[in-house]
Order: sequence, then C-alpha cells, then structure tokens
Amino acid sequence: MNQFQNRRKKLIDLMNTRRENQKNTTNVAMVLDKPEDIFYLTGFWGEGILVISETFSKLIVPKLEYSRALRTSKDCDIVSSERGKSLTDSLFNQLNVKSVVYYSNSNYHIVKELGKKIGKKDLVVDYNPVEKLREIKDAQEIDKIRKASKIIDKLFEVATNEIRVNRTEEEIQAILVYEAMKMGAKFPFYEFTSNPLIIASGSQSSFPHAETSRRIIRKDEFIVIDITLSYDHYVSDATRTFGIGRISNKMKSVYEIVKTSQENGIRRLSETDNFALVDASCRDTIQKEGYGEYFIHSTGHGIGLEVHESPWIRPKITSHIQENMTITIEPGIYLENKFGVRIEDSLCITKKKKGQIGQHFDSLNLNSFDKELIIL
Amino acid sequence: MNQFQNRRKKLIDLMNTRRENQKNTTNVAMVLDKPEDIFYLTGFWGEGILVISETFSKLIVPKLEYSRALRTSKDCDIVSSERGKSLTDSLFNQLNVKSVVYYSNSNYHIVKELGKKIGKKDLVVDYNPVEKLREIKDAQEIDKIRKASKIIDKLFEVATNEIRVNRTEEEIQAILVYEAMKMGAKFPFYEFTSNPLIIASGSQSSFPHAETSRRIIRKDEFIVIDITLSYDHYVSDATRTFGIGRISNKMKSVYEIVKTSQENGIRRLSETDNFALVDASCRDTIQKEGYGEYFIHSTGHGIGLEVHESPWIRPKITSHIQENMTITIEPGIYLENKFGVRIEDSLCITKKKKGQIGQHFDSLNLNSFDKELIIL
Repeated sequence: MNQFQNRRKKLIDLMNTRRENQKNTTNVAMVLDKPEDIFYLTGFWGEGILVISETFSKLIVPKLEYSRALRTSKDCDIVSSERGKSLTDSLFNQLNVKSVVYYSNSNYHIVKELGKKIGKKDLVVDYNPVEKLREIKDAQEIDKIRKASKIIDKLFEVATNEIRVNRTEEEIQAILVYEAMKMGAKFPFYEFTSNPLIIASGSQSSFPHAETSRRIIRKDEFIVIDITLSYDHYVSDATRTFGIGRISNKMKSVYEIVKTSQENGIRRLSETDNFALVDASCRDTIQKEGYGEYFIHSTGHGIGLEVHESPWIRPKITSHIQENMTITIEPGIYLENKFGVRIEDSLCITKKKKGQIGQHFDSLNLNSFDKELIIL
Repeated sequence: MNQFQNRRKKLIDLMNTRRENQKNTTNVAMVLDKPEDIFYLTGFWGEGILVISETFSKLIVPKLEYSRALRTSKDCDIVSSERGKSLTDSLFNQLNVKSVVYYSNSNYHIVKELGKKIGKKDLVVDYNPVEKLREIKDAQEIDKIRKASKIIDKLFEVATNEIRVNRTEEEIQAILVYEAMKMGAKFPFYEFTSNPLIIASGSQSSFPHAETSRRIIRKDEFIVIDITLSYDHYVSDATRTFGIGRISNKMKSVYEIVKTSQENGIRRLSETDNFALVDASCRDTIQKEGYGEYFIHSTGHGIGLEVHESPWIRPKITSHIQENMTITIEPGIYLENKFGVRIEDSLCITKKKKGQIGQHFDSLNLNSFDKELIIL
C-alpha cells in the first residue's frame, strides 16, 4: 500500500468511526474538493473533486487537467468532466451506486447540489476530517518543512545585508523572493493579503498583517520581516524584527518582552499536553509586563500544506500536543501607529525524552537564526 | 458620494431589483466575506465580513485587523470581533435589527449559522451579485490593468534574453518574478497551482496548467510562458509560446493555427454582442485544421481583482459583450506528451465606433508583444 492509499484508508476508518452509531455505514462515499486535501490523498495538485469509498478512488477533473492528473495521481480512476457540464454534474454520473455521500468541504452550492441529487437525508456535511489526519506529519513531510525553514534562515541573513535606509519595503521583498526562488522555494497563498511576505517598517510594523508597501525605510525604526514559503508544497513560517539606526530604550524593552514570551512558549511545549497552556505561557509573560492588550492575535498555528492549519494555539483550545505535529510560536506586541515586534519560529513536536518534566513531548526548533535584537 | 459608497449603492439597488417580487424588501442586509468583494466595496483587503444595507455599512474584523481596516476602508463602521468569538458570532450581535439577510458568498458553515440565527425563511442565498458589478471597470481600474499588461510585455522581452538551453523552468521563473516585482507587480493567487507563473517547456507544454518545475530546457522544443500578475490589486494575464533551436514544420504549423485562431477571436469581439460567438470563432479556426479535440479549455475569461472572473468566454455562454469589460482571449492546442501552444492577450472592450460592422463595441489589446513565432 503506497502512502496515498494508506492515507485514504485512514480517512475511511476515521469516517466509519465517526458514523458508527448511524445507519447506512456501508456504501458510503466521501466527496472532497480542497486542493490541499486532494494533493494529500492522491498526489495531484489541481482543479478536481475527489470521491473515495472503501472500494474506489475517483478523481473528477476538467478536460484540461486530465493528462496531468493521470500522470501525477497515485492509484485513482481519473474521470474527465463531460463537455459543458460542471465537475459536480459529472460527479453524479459517476456515482451510479445510490450512495450515502459524506461531504467534507464547505462550498454551499456544491452541498446544495449534492443534497438534491443524493437526497438530503443521505447527505452528511461535517467539518473536514482530513484536517485531523494532516496534523501529524510523516518523516518526508517533516523533511520538506525543515528544508523550507533552512531557506528562511538564509533569507534572514540576506535581509541583514539588504535592509538599508531609503530602500522601500517592496524592494526588500523583491530581493528576498528572488533569493528564495533560486533556492527552490515557492510562496503559498494566503487569501487575506496580496503580498508573498510581510515586510513592515516603522509604524507599519504595528499592524500584524501589514501589506508590504512602497514605504521607504527610515532611520531609528523597527522592521518586521515575516517569511512564509514552501518547499515541495510544504510550508514553514518565521519572523524576525530588526532595528535600524538608534533604537529607543522602550523599543528595546518591548523587544525583550516578546523574545522572553516566545522562549517561554517554546519551553512550555515540553512541559504540558495542552496547547492552551502554551498560549497562556506566552500571553502571561506579556501581560505581566503590562502589554497584554497589545498582543492581539493567536500564539501560533499548525503548518504543512497550508500556511495556517490545525492545530491552533489559542486560549481555550482543547487540542492536545502530539508527536510529529509542526507548528509556529509567534507572540507579538503592537503599539498602534508607533511600532510592533513579532518573533516567530517553526517547530516540530518530537518524541518523549527521559528526564523531561512529567514525560511530555519535546520540540525541535526548525529555525536557528539569532533571536537577539540585531541593529543594522 | 465616493466610489465605494457608489458601488455599495449600486449593489443594494441590484439586490432590490432581484427581490422586488418578494416580501420583506425593506430591512434587508447583505453579508459578504470574499476578500476581493470587500476590497471592491470598502477599500480594505484583509480578513473580515461585510454587512451592508440601505442605512449602514459594517465591517467586522478580527482584533489584529482593526487598526488597518479603520485606516484603509472608506465610510464603514469597523467592528472588532469579540475575544474568543468567531467573526460570524460577532456579526449577529451587530445585527440587532431582525433583518432578512441576503448572503452572497458560498461558505456552507456560514450559511448554516446565518440560517440558525436569522431563521431559514428569512435567509436568501444567491450567487454573488458583486460579480456582475465587477464585470464593468471604471477608468482607474482599466488604468491599473493596463499597467499590469505593460509589465507583462516587458517580461516577455526579458524572457527572450533569459531562456536558454540547460536552464530550468524554475530559474526562468525566479528571474521573471524578480523583474516583475522590481516594477511594482505582485502575484495574485490561483488555488489550483503552487507557482506564480506557468513556464512549461517541451512535453510539459502539452499540459495547459503545467506546474513550473526543475525540468531543464532543451534544444528544439517549445516553451509556453503564461504570466499572470497584478498592479495595485488589478490583474492582467498573457501568454506567449517561444521556440528554442530547430522547430519542426508540424510545430510551426500548429503555432500558426493558434495564432490565427487568437486573431480571429479578437476580430470577432468587434463583430458581435455575444461571447459564445467569440469562442466559436477561435474554436472553428482550430477545428477546421483538424485540431478541434486538442483545444481543451475555454477561450477566455474576465480579469480584474481576480485572475478568473466573470464574464466567461465559452461555448453556450449567453452573456453579452459590454463596454469596459476586461477579458482574455487564449486559444491553445495541446498534443499530449509532445508539445502545446497557447497565445493569450488581455483586452479591454471599448466604445462603439462609427463604421464598425453592425455598430458593435470595439476592443483595445492591452498587450503589444509580438505574436510571430520567436525562435531563440
């Protein structure tokens, strides 16, 4: 059984477990349409709908993707959609068994069409179970994330040479993207921004999701460089905040608080099973110094085929730390229209080690670029 | 009234027109969550949910986006989501009028939550009406698309200097992306690929949506360069196919058929009101030469805030050609595992001119890079 068949089997098992108290557990098919999920389950990245059951894996693609799907997917029947028909229309002609369909994604119009054709009572719409599977990475996946992290570390080196007064944020971005692409990196999509990187100088750094702009870098300010990139489809994500010129004592002090917060969060990863306590560790450190209300986002998130995926590191989250999860830890402090600081690493949760407090998992930091304040 | 208020007013009018035969036309609010739509209606590009009615425009954003939304949106109330609550949860506390909500986007889980809170009978889910508004561009939008097109033309020049035997597709991509970013371009998202550009050499060119790879460029083959980029959020999209070394007579003949097809499609734009006939013009040209079954995609699509948006240029489409639409015309022929050719321009539909056949609209080609076969 290859890795894709293995993942599909695990998914079917997961679905059966969830549905074991219900009727109609036989003859169930799952329908998925998220490109990351399809890639994870088949090896094909492109436009399509995947239908899997205990007995078949069918990938329905538009005609223009047929040959590429055939070449890149593993052990699937590839079905080209019929001329002039949508993928969902073509799908129903494939489902000639009167199946119960379990639909794991979230497009309302597809759900509605499925309901019409299959019958509402035979359609279950649930949150995506592939997310759960994708939380735990195998050795190959971790290796790709590690390679992406190494490229990010090299880019921080490049940044220390290229950041200078009178350059624009966009100019720095162009250089970093070019160097990254020469090393084989690509830039995964994040729909809420139009930039591949966050390069936020001066007062822009006070917006966690600042758009990299034509703003000119000036003396005596911070510049936040948040790099998200992928290697062979797998994402790493890290941030450093650099100083330029003279940095005030207040700015230095905020930097040190964020750095301590981030280090405390990482330490906590090997002292608990609970992501909420990791979040609390970062948040408490900042709160104690009086900046609690200026840490206005989550502590971290899973990384993998997507930039942000499960697990989520937030207050009140109940998910458990598990071996081979890959995550970020990224506290920040943002003083509106003044300046902001964020420090972020990508990490991998590793085996339990003897001698650890309470026998919890350990973590490996995939980034090694310096966290001391570098003033350029 | 600024342009954003004006667009919101048009949208409300459009909704009222659609719903005029129904009860409850007063006290209706629309809910939207697509970043492109929110940007179009408010000026803010980021994570949020927009609720508009005849009397208010509320933008609900996560805490980390609050200041940026306040700074970049025009004439909206910005509401920060409550700690630990999702945007949709926070939304309902804002809708203290018992409104009928018209939801124009497609996330199933949001639709379900809206249905629960508002009541199913007071919730209308419809295909996105903003798409229709966005079809017709204003002068500023056209100017940005024109600038994006000019950058693409310059990149084709760069490509003629940089394509050489033994370079990889990814190396060419890195150079083009760097040059584009230096000119202020960005790369919009297309979820079905992980590359900013399509650079497809040799047999790869036979896949319309080939992934740019580490394949080495060899002698005597075609290389398809499909460039999609944005300037100030507005997208242009164009493709050229170059030859390297000796190109066989068959390859040359296929190239000429695609070129003639594309020119015929462009000519047809000013001879009809019907996009289906533009598609037919491109398709018939290829069909007559015996390659009909190898043209396996649409003839073109709208461009704007998205890479692919309404109008669609396909067989059987009933939408009409209108002034200030911006579109692509991009026929291709793909001979599996051998080679492919695609030629694509971005165009703007312009005023009716005297002396045109049947007084149809004219079109302006936004790309000017040569379409004769260039052999490097």
